[in-house]
Amino acid sequence: MPQSAESIWANVTQIRNQAPLIHNITNFVVMNNTANALLALGASPAMVHAPEEVEEFASISSALVVNIGTLDATFVSGMKLAMPQAKALGKPVIFDPVGVGATTYRNQISEELLTLATPDIIRGNASEIMALAGLNSQTKGVDSQHSSYAAIAAARRLSLMWNCTVVISGASDYIVRGNQQATVKNGHPLMTKVTGMGCTATALIGAFAAVNSDYFQAATYAMAVMGIAGELAVQKKPAPGSLQLNFLDALYQLTETDIDARLNLTYA
Amino acid sequence: MPQSAESIWANVTQIRNQAPLIHNITNFVVMNNTANALLALGASPAMVHAPEEVEEFASISSALVVNIGTLDATFVSGMKLAMPQAKALGKPVIFDPVGVGATTYRNQISEELLTLATPDIIRGNASEIMALAGLNSQTKGVDSQHSSYAAIAAARRLSLMWNCTVVISGASDYIVRGNQQATVKNGHPLMTKVTGMGCTATALIGAFAAVNSDYFQAATYAMAVMGIAGELAVQKKPAPGSLQLNFLDALYQLTETDIDARLNLTYA
Amino acid sequence: MPQSAESIWANVTQIRNQAPLIHNITNFVVMNNTANALLALGASPAMVHAPEEVEEFASISSALVVNIGTLDATFVSGMKLAMPQAKALGKPVIFDPVGVGATTYRNQISEELLTLATPDIIRGNASEIMALAGLNSQTKGVDSQHSSYAAIAAARRLSLMWNCTVVISGASDYIVRGNQQATVKNGHPLMTKVTGMGCTATALIGAFAAVNSDYFQAATYAMAVMGIAGELAVQKKPAPGSLQLNFLDALYQLTETDIDARLNLTYA
Repeated sequence: MPQSAESIWANVTQIRNQAPLIHNITNFVVMNNTANALLALGASPAMVHAPEEVEEFASISSALVVNIGTLDATFVSGMKLAMPQAKALGKPVIFDPVGVGATTYRNQISEELLTLATPDIIRGNASEIMALAGLNSQTKGVDSQHSSYAAIAAARRLSLMWNCTVVISGASDYIVRGNQQATVKNGHPLMTKVTGMGCTATALIGAFAAVNSDYFQAATYAMAVMGIAGELAVQKKPAPGSLQLNFLDALYQLTETDIDARLNLTYA
Repeated sequence: MPQSAESIWANVTQIRNQAPLIHNITNFVVMNNTANALLALGASPAMVHAPEEVEEFASISSALVVNIGTLDATFVSGMKLAMPQAKALGKPVIFDPVGVGATTYRNQISEELLTLATPDIIRGNASEIMALAGLNSQTKGVDSQHSSYAAIAAARRLSLMWNCTVVISGASDYIVRGNQQATVKNGHPLMTKVTGMGCTATALIGAFAAVNSDYFQAATYAMAVMGIAGELAVQKKPAPGSLQLNFLDALYQLTETDIDARLNLTYA
Repeated sequence: MPQSAESIWANVTQIRNQAPLIHNITNFVVMNNTANALLALGASPAMVHAPEEVEEFASISSALVVNIGTLDATFVSGMKLAMPQAKALGKPVIFDPVGVGATTYRNQISEELLTLATPDIIRGNASEIMALAGLNSQTKGVDSQHSSYAAIAAARRLSLMWNCTVVISGASDYIVRGNQQATVKNGHPLMTKVTGMGCTATALIGAFAAVNSDYFQAATYAMAVMGIAGELAVQKKPAPGSLQLNFLDALYQLTETDIDARLNLTYA
């Protein structure tokens, strides 16, 4: 078995055994799905956004996942308190800049959050990563207008600028930290027909980062598990409604053999 | 093949090819389902409600869908900015007055929104359409207390009052614009046992209106596709949990033959 | 047939016939699931939280369910208006203190709500019930750190303190009112791998309380139906994605025979 498959499986086992508490400040569309995906993987999800309690909650959690999908003033206030607190406590912070590039508000809030407390890991599609890196990519809603490959330079720039790991998800996923690069070619195009699959990937990264302090590795392993569970789900039935539930089942039933048989991970 | 089935299929194909961006300001209960239904149909959904960005977002979208299901002050502020902006830019605006008639607040907000920016299409159940037309129908929660047929006069009145297309959904769906009337007898009663099927219909109308500027036609075609996908789903398994996912699968896998074989559309 | 099974079935039949309107002020994660569970059971759900309308809405509903899962200032304002109004009108009020014990804010709000308008029924996991009874249990997120049995004394204390029925859900569910106690040993551990199953139980209690004014009985019967539907769902497929939809199907298709064959209810 390749060493990576073994390491991924070790992390999955740790998540299942420790059930790390993952604090999510995320969007209304995906709260249910990402909570279920975290549970299926073995983690313990919590969705907590109120400014009155996010700092206290960040202190009992093992990772913080911030997602701006349906942001508004209340949620932004919560993010601005939770992120510095999680950072101060050494908890991994994962940021998902949904739709950045689409509106001035999303650009401003993303910039403010990054400046206030740099995330350890950023995950977005190619358009979002390019927009966040200041390349003035126009984002059309939440779907990428670019292939993930086209955003590698932007990801590297972003990684160096903020000293963090950057994940570009797409047909191929690229994970970048400084000069390190991993490529995951797992997953299936039908996953783009289910809302919030990207947000789910970000949440799973949170679970892996809670048990693996090498965040480049954590992000890479999470993307691999995400893609493999997606493949297993599509194999059951290639249709988007069924995919949602088969994805959760696959995540829950995932074995070392599944990872070993399907992993398509290379380091550049 | 009847001409209507061919036209509906042409619209479905356009949606699949163009993936129009549909801007939704909708309720918390159905955000996930309507996003997934829009994706399964071939459109690109976005849920964006913050007053800080809805105008900018309306300008990059192909249609605006406003739904008051779980309205509150923040969402209402967003609706009041987005609707006039979408209208000013000539984008179709679709309005779903969930629960109007149940509370004074819903009545007031609906009236304010209609006055501020008349929607091109309004979809509701019989009680909601009657309440909105000022017929003082008591709405009990979100479920209709009247058959859709009983609301046709109210729909006509509403259509003339606001110069828009009005859809009454129910066992039979009636689509009314001035003196024009279409009747769609597709769908299945079990669809009332899944939350948000009405809201999903409204979202699909948004997708059809994005590719068909005859909004009476767009609304009619959307209701037909909604009903046909529902029938296909119930045929798979007549139970409400399964219906949810089979509906998404059916929408994604919908063929011209399905429409041709099942369409029950008449013009009065 | 044991008398209890017959009584439970009588209540299910009443819910199906009367379709009582259940007013929920609940969290973003579970709104969709709990609405669908109430529909599958036969009730009519509504999710309404705006301070501008909750009092009016409480007056047309048959029960009020309040859940603090993703609470924030807007939702708390709605809760503080709806609860006293529902109480004043003699409507059953059911309270779900999600995550109480995890943060000071949750503790304070829970205390304020209980003081303002004592719920008729409180449902939580063991950690939540112990925290609410002032036993200083540390809650880790939303998952219990204690067995439900360990919380019986806390439940009794809480019941006497607030003169209400208290439900501890877990591997065994305990329903306590003063010196009365019922134990339900239905359900399956896999239900803990689906988000919001506890919240769904609370919502179903609302439906039973709407047709059965003996709230101790109503809570007990709801927990039994919840557990039995869960068992039937797991039997179909032991995986968490499938469980979600099979649970809804089971609830919708539930028969008197299912209850009779599976009910594991004892009174202590």
